[in-house]
Amino acid sequence: MIDLYTFTTPNGRKASIMLEEVELPYTVHKIDITKGDQFTPEFVAINPNSKIPAIADREAGITIFESGAILIYLAEKTGKLMPTEPKKRYQVLEWLMFQMAGVGPMFGQLNHFKKFAPEKIPYAIARYEKETLRLYSVLDQQLASHEFICEDYSIVDIATFPWVATYDFQGLTLDNHPHLKRWFEAIQARPAVIRGMAVPA
Amino acid sequence: MIDLYTFTTPNGRKASIMLEEVELPYTVHKIDITKGDQFTPEFVAINPNSKIPAIADREAGITIFESGAILIYLAEKTGKLMPTEPKKRYQVLEWLMFQMAGVGPMFGQLNHFKKFAPEKIPYAIARYEKETLRLYSVLDQQLASHEFICEDYSIVDIATFPWVATYDFQGLTLDNHPHLKRWFEAIQARPAVIRGMAVPA
Ligand SMILES: N[C@@H](CCC(=O)N[C@@H](CS)C(=O)NCC(=O)O)C(=O)O
Ligand SMILES: N[C@@H](CCC(=O)N[C@@H](CS)C(=O)NCC(=O)O)C(=O)O
Repeated sequence: MIDLYTFTTPNGRKASIMLEEVELPYTVHKIDITKGDQFTPEFVAINPNSKIPAIADREAGITIFESGAILIYLAEKTGKLMPTEPKKRYQVLEWLMFQMAGVGPMFGQLNHFKKFAPEKIPYAIARYEKETLRLYSVLDQQLASHEFICEDYSIVDIATFPWVATYDFQGLTLDNHPHLKRWFEAIQARPAVIRGMAVPA
Repeated sequence: MIDLYTFTTPNGRKASIMLEEVELPYTVHKIDITKGDQFTPEFVAINPNSKIPAIADREAGITIFESGAILIYLAEKTGKLMPTEPKKRYQVLEWLMFQMAGVGPMFGQLNHFKKFAPEKIPYAIARYEKETLRLYSVLDQQLASHEFICEDYSIVDIATFPWVATYDFQGLTLDNHPHLKRWFEAIQARPAVIRGMAVPA
């Protein structure tokens, strides 16, 4: 049984979608980051960086933080959604890093400046909107010749989907990126994705 | 022989330090990102995201972008600087993701707003300075009980070092984080790190 520490955010949903896809039983622990649950000593012992998601695999005696590391762990534990053939595996790792270091942080900064910051700062909003649209184009280009971001459906699609899913909240559209839109609609319809996006209740 | 596409930046230096540490022969190709070299068709064929670093391992017939994926590839190719025992290996992967998704992007935003942005925006500078100092504290805490960020010297130290090395440029000090400072000085003195930080000439 996996313990999942999560909240209703894109990074949290990567982990719940993955657990649904690989069909591992898990217990959800809601860490309400708007109330400071991420700073309790119990949670900091699992993630010294005080961020969700994190997991504990009690039988294996292992805890893991950072959504990208959680995805690799669960893929390797189950032998699913990450190829073992070297070329395909490194392709998954590079695009996973692209999500972790690019898509996640940059879409996150756009959320902050467009939706949450107390002052509306045009320079910062423009900076992150431009970068988000550039990242849409990189994905759109890749998806023009690929059904999924890598060769097969993988942890890269799972990592990227919940962030692309914020487009409407961010006041953006996918209409100018038809391949990205086609991919988004296909992923959105997967039963495991629907279940994972609803976690935590 | 590895081809390394890089420039004089923290993400580029991760790759050159790693190549020096594992003692693989490599050819440096300078991609001057201030002149737009990252947008040539030849380079975009290697990294569709138009960013350095990237590598090509011609004999293996593989190209890789994203510094985090390059570090994993070179560690696995040589059997060095990344443990194979599962618990230690996942610890390296989670802290590598912490560097890729946290330290890199956030220190990078501080650089932008403090040093490069045409207008000085106090809110944005304060936001990223606060987050950088918080990340210093997370590292300092970990280094209070560890000689290196994980159990042994690893790709995590290599990924983190060139970003911490920007502290002076960012107008910050390591003096309030003594464990981080002790670690920084130890890594800085490594011959391979000295050589890797000087790439490209
Ligand atoms: N790189 C991390 C980012 C995690 C992250 O930023 N989590 C946010 C929610 S999406 C959080 O817990 N924020 C609480 C806080 O910063 O105090 C990952 O992918 O796991
Ligand atoms: N997450 C990427 C980030 C790479 C990155 O941001 N590279 C910068 C230099 S440090 C770059 O090439 N910038 C050129 C540009 O954005 O046009 C990695 O770690 O490899």
